[in-house]
Amino acid sequence: MSLARLDNKWTAMVVIALGRCGALRFGGLRATVEGISAKVLTETLRDLERDGLVARHEYAEMPPRVEYELTDLGRTLHVPLQALGRWAEEHAAEVLAAREAYDAGCR
Amino acid sequence: MSLARLDNKWTAMVVIALGRCGALRFGGLRATVEGISAKVLTETLRDLERDGLVARHEYAEMPPRVEYELTDLGRTLHVPLQALGRWAEEHAAEVLAAREAYDAGCR
Repeated sequence: MSLARLDNKWTAMVVIALGRCGALRFGGLRATVEGISAKVLTETLRDLERDGLVARHEYAEMPPRVEYELTDLGRTLHVPLQALGRWAEEHAAEVLAAREAYDAGCR
Repeated sequence: MSLARLDNKWTAMVVIALGRCGALRFGGLRATVEGISAKVLTETLRDLERDGLVARHEYAEMPPRVEYELTDLGRTLHVPLQALGRWAEEHAAEVLAAREAYDAGCR
């Protein structure tokens, strides 16, 4: 699989959200992962379930309740992804400053 | 920047290659990053230079020599990216097995 699937921003953000919050419903995930559409979240969850990274739990209640959470394998991925997310947060300003300088012709 | 630019497999692989090998020429990078085309490598290096993650060194020799290496900022990114790359290598078999089971209808 090389880095495939990992090179998807939404995949990373859903794994980070579930790692941080534990089990979440679809609506909770949509609220946590800023900017994700229902369509993309549905596809992302199906891909993650298929890859064995996320488990889908259906509770036979009224109304029915469905929750998503990381599997053991998904939790092992959460660690490096979270480190990468933290890097992006910490260094965003430096990267943007470098871009501005580059675009201004400063090499 | 959220996770943008990081959600690019080639970006990740070029940063990992430079972090592992130190300064490399274009040809050396192409040989190290399996499967990358000259066009994509050119674009990736320009993006990384623009983001302040890679420095381009031109040596006034005959024939001229150009080398690429990580900046200090790029080296801080190398650590979490390498951890992610290692995860992908270590868990690829598990992910593929999960996919097969899912596609066979096992839920």
